[in-house]
Amino acid sequence: MGPTMSSTPIVTAAVVIIGNEILSGRTLDANLPYLAKALNAVGVRVMEARVVADDKGAIIAAVNSCRAGYDHVFTTGGIGPTHDDITSAAIAGAFGVPLIRHPVAVELLTRHYAATDLNEARLKMADIPEGAGLIDNPVSAAPGFHIGNVWVLPGVPRILQAMVDGLAATLRGGDPVLSRTISAFTTESGIAFALADVQRQHARTEIGSYPFVRTGRFGVSLVIRSTDRAALEAATAAVAAMLRASGIEPLIDDAASNPAKQPSEA
Amino acid sequence: MGPTMSSTPIVTAAVVIIGNEILSGRTLDANLPYLAKALNAVGVRVMEARVVADDKGAIIAAVNSCRAGYDHVFTTGGIGPTHDDITSAAIAGAFGVPLIRHPVAVELLTRHYAATDLNEARLKMADIPEGAGLIDNPVSAAPGFHIGNVWVLPGVPRILQAMVDGLAATLRGGDPVLSRTISAFTTESGIAFALADVQRQHARTEIGSYPFVRTGRFGVSLVIRSTDRAALEAATAAVAAMLRASGIEPLIDDAASNPAKQPSEA
Repeated sequence: MGPTMSSTPIVTAAVVIIGNEILSGRTLDANLPYLAKALNAVGVRVMEARVVADDKGAIIAAVNSCRAGYDHVFTTGGIGPTHDDITSAAIAGAFGVPLIRHPVAVELLTRHYAATDLNEARLKMADIPEGAGLIDNPVSAAPGFHIGNVWVLPGVPRILQAMVDGLAATLRGGDPVLSRTISAFTTESGIAFALADVQRQHARTEIGSYPFVRTGRFGVSLVIRSTDRAALEAATAAVAAMLRASGIEPLIDDAASNPAKQPSEA
Repeated sequence: MGPTMSSTPIVTAAVVIIGNEILSGRTLDANLPYLAKALNAVGVRVMEARVVADDKGAIIAAVNSCRAGYDHVFTTGGIGPTHDDITSAAIAGAFGVPLIRHPVAVELLTRHYAATDLNEARLKMADIPEGAGLIDNPVSAAPGFHIGNVWVLPGVPRILQAMVDGLAATLRGGDPVLSRTISAFTTESGIAFALADVQRQHARTEIGSYPFVRTGRFGVSLVIRSTDRAALEAATAAVAAMLRASGIEPLIDDAASNPAKQPSEA
């Protein structure tokens, strides 16, 4: 995010994705894109993500490294009822606190499940690090939790998304990053130097170049990002002009992507 | 991978995914699953992955941390012709060597592009760290490279996949992890304790539990993994027996997944 300047402090986050099934290639992670977009909408920028195994030492190392380096850490996965769900114990280990059975979490599970269905495996989902607060789960009752600057979320996308939607509104972020995309049927190398010039002249924006192939034709999507709407529009116009000067028709998206929630502007 | 034992040493890898477009949520990364499967087929296990921004310092920190901790590091992204492609310079920085224009890479690009099309932007793709070796790109000529235990690959999936297919055959791995999957229409919590018992009795395997919803019914996929085929089959039989004892019909995949290449057994 080097050249991007902001009128409010930048609030940063890391995402720690926990699960052997991601590292083995069995499961494609879709939680990082969801978290990244939802957090950016409230002005929290994901600066790094890590995928770690269902291994207590690996989880503790990643969480402790990330919570020291970023304003927030969001973990996904490993808070279910089975033996391979070890995230809660690992987070307790990372903070040096015991795992306790949280009375409010027990109550939430008791209300959700019939008494006969609330077995010991389900009650394991009420075991969270001492001192942690609960994160509401509107789908299946078993809560997430937060301790310090670490937010512990499940791996099942539908439940994660519901929790994040509730959570994001409560976070105090900086300015969201706005973006515009210009696509063009050209090659990256054909416009590389002219594009670098535009980037140099528009230092308050960050311009990324992403090649694609569409209906057999080579193309490039140029993504312009900034927290400053005027700087964003100026750079977008400059990219379009650069393309036209090379005889390439720019295909500009309708408007700057406008995150639904912008607490810093509210 | 704690309890899994191996007859040959475990060969490990980390994947460093480079790109703002992944961290912003714009692009869903599909390179990690491809790399994980291809590497496991030749007995190299991905133990960790990191996603970092197009930021030289962030790339250097991640690469230097990972190359000290794992046998191999594979990076993806950031080796194209545009200003935001800074991976080659960052890898040179990580190894403390200069970036040089590699004569063989220039020759490869010269053969691929018409002389008039080989502009300076494309020649940037021939700039690699001094001392690095080239990785063949059968799709679009611009090579990847390797230096020390770091393998530098592009982000475009089609090109990455072609490079990995060529590369994997040359790596010397340990035993590949074999896996079987048993699915059942039940809840995780209903079988959690019985499953933990099976895991305890089959310490040479690693058993993961992954909930799903299929045609409106809750189900669980139980994935048994091991480098030892006999241990794998024994644990699979034990999981199936455990389900049947609970009155649940196990849906067992046909056979152990059998990576195409098993150099350690060849």
